[in-house]
Amino acid sequence: MVNYGMLEPKEIRELIRNQEITGPTAGMSKGNTQANLVILKKEHAFDFLLFCQRNPKSCPLLDVTEPGSYIPAMIAENADIRKDIPKYRIYRNGVFTEEVADITEYWEDDMVGFLIGCSFTFETPLLESGIPIRHIEENCNVPMYKTNIMSNKAGMFEGPTVVSMRPMTPEDAIRAVQITSRFPAVHGAPIHIGDPGQIGIKDITKPDFGDAVPFKSGEVPVFWACGVTPQAVAMESKPSIMITHAPGHMFISDIKDEAFSVL
Amino acid sequence: MVNYGMLEPKEIRELIRNQEITGPTAGMSKGNTQANLVILKKEHAFDFLLFCQRNPKSCPLLDVTEPGSYIPAMIAENADIRKDIPKYRIYRNGVFTEEVADITEYWEDDMVGFLIGCSFTFETPLLESGIPIRHIEENCNVPMYKTNIMSNKAGMFEGPTVVSMRPMTPEDAIRAVQITSRFPAVHGAPIHIGDPGQIGIKDITKPDFGDAVPFKSGEVPVFWACGVTPQAVAMESKPSIMITHAPGHMFISDIKDEAFSVL
Repeated sequence: MVNYGMLEPKEIRELIRNQEITGPTAGMSKGNTQANLVILKKEHAFDFLLFCQRNPKSCPLLDVTEPGSYIPAMIAENADIRKDIPKYRIYRNGVFTEEVADITEYWEDDMVGFLIGCSFTFETPLLESGIPIRHIEENCNVPMYKTNIMSNKAGMFEGPTVVSMRPMTPEDAIRAVQITSRFPAVHGAPIHIGDPGQIGIKDITKPDFGDAVPFKSGEVPVFWACGVTPQAVAMESKPSIMITHAPGHMFISDIKDEAFSVL
Repeated sequence: MVNYGMLEPKEIRELIRNQEITGPTAGMSKGNTQANLVILKKEHAFDFLLFCQRNPKSCPLLDVTEPGSYIPAMIAENADIRKDIPKYRIYRNGVFTEEVADITEYWEDDMVGFLIGCSFTFETPLLESGIPIRHIEENCNVPMYKTNIMSNKAGMFEGPTVVSMRPMTPEDAIRAVQITSRFPAVHGAPIHIGDPGQIGIKDITKPDFGDAVPFKSGEVPVFWACGVTPQAVAMESKPSIMITHAPGHMFISDIKDEAFSVL
């Protein structure tokens, strides 16, 4: 059996392109940064780019393609965002209509691809510092919640910040603040620690996306701004067409995680 | 005599708006972040925003206005970028045509303002760490140079990176790397230390912009990406109209310098 963790990003992307890999990408090409994808038509691109610029914690941009180009040249110059993700979701007027393995036939000459940083990047240094990550231990998706923290509006795009949550001891939480502060390009430091109610989360056992995870005695919830925010916001503003990756089926870039550290 | 360093940003902006302040803004509203300004028409705004996104070290965006809006709401919600800078420069088709104190009559309904971080912000913590800054000691402009480091192109915008230079002892240079790494929103860490020839600078005594400064024995040049880059690049791509601040005549925001530190 092939160890996908040891393959180069280019090799993984080729397996995906040939539809030999069709599942989630967690753990593939270890140490290389994975990204969320949002594709919109040019008419919405300025406003969405501005939305990301105004909300860097939830929408850290790793790359934006030229209008009409499907090559994310800054992070993977041989890639093709129409084919190199295992599963895509198509939204029409804000409604999820279909899931496909290749979007070549959906691609239009005025489309722009937004590659957005993902918390996978900072989970590696957390694990390497000996901080356990519950959803990895439980082998499930990270729990995500809508909050009452409004994003900064830009043109048609507005909506609440979505957060991901990891239970930690207070000691680990402090160390996690230090470690993730080094990675502003992938959400950076947490935006909240402790009482979920303070950011509008009613029931921590019922995430809006992903899976609930158990707490151990003495642990507190630690919340990071989440890359699901821009997708959720774009969806609510109902563009005629929007294409995203399917949850967990990410784009694998040529950039090493450590390259996104500022210190 | 009024001590402009002690006034609130709002008070300074009012004095500027009434043209009671008409000169450079260095040292005013101490501890509040000052910003470079570039105004372009909407037709160029997506490409320019993309250029800044792709070149975050030279073009760290602090705010971008909605098309047609002259209010930089993220960094100063009561400000007006048409009036709150002491001196503006107008460029037509890439040629500098006039310098004015108010651009209300030049403003068009589809203009977008880009507020870009400035090295003033990281000079304060450098000074506070006991690192002398030569151009401040000499009471002149920071020396700036065109390099052979090409920016990442975006649409019509392309060109070389401009750097600012500060002479330092190697020990201070190391400390300066640490300090400025904390401020990715205002150029971040240096992009070069030492031999100017390696980045295409032929004569360190002849800056392309600003003033030459003397070196002391044992000092090396330390180079930061400079906010003049986007202006220079925009000028070369000859948009029908571009408006910028005049050198040294900056926009004073409501945000404290320390708010831009990631650690």
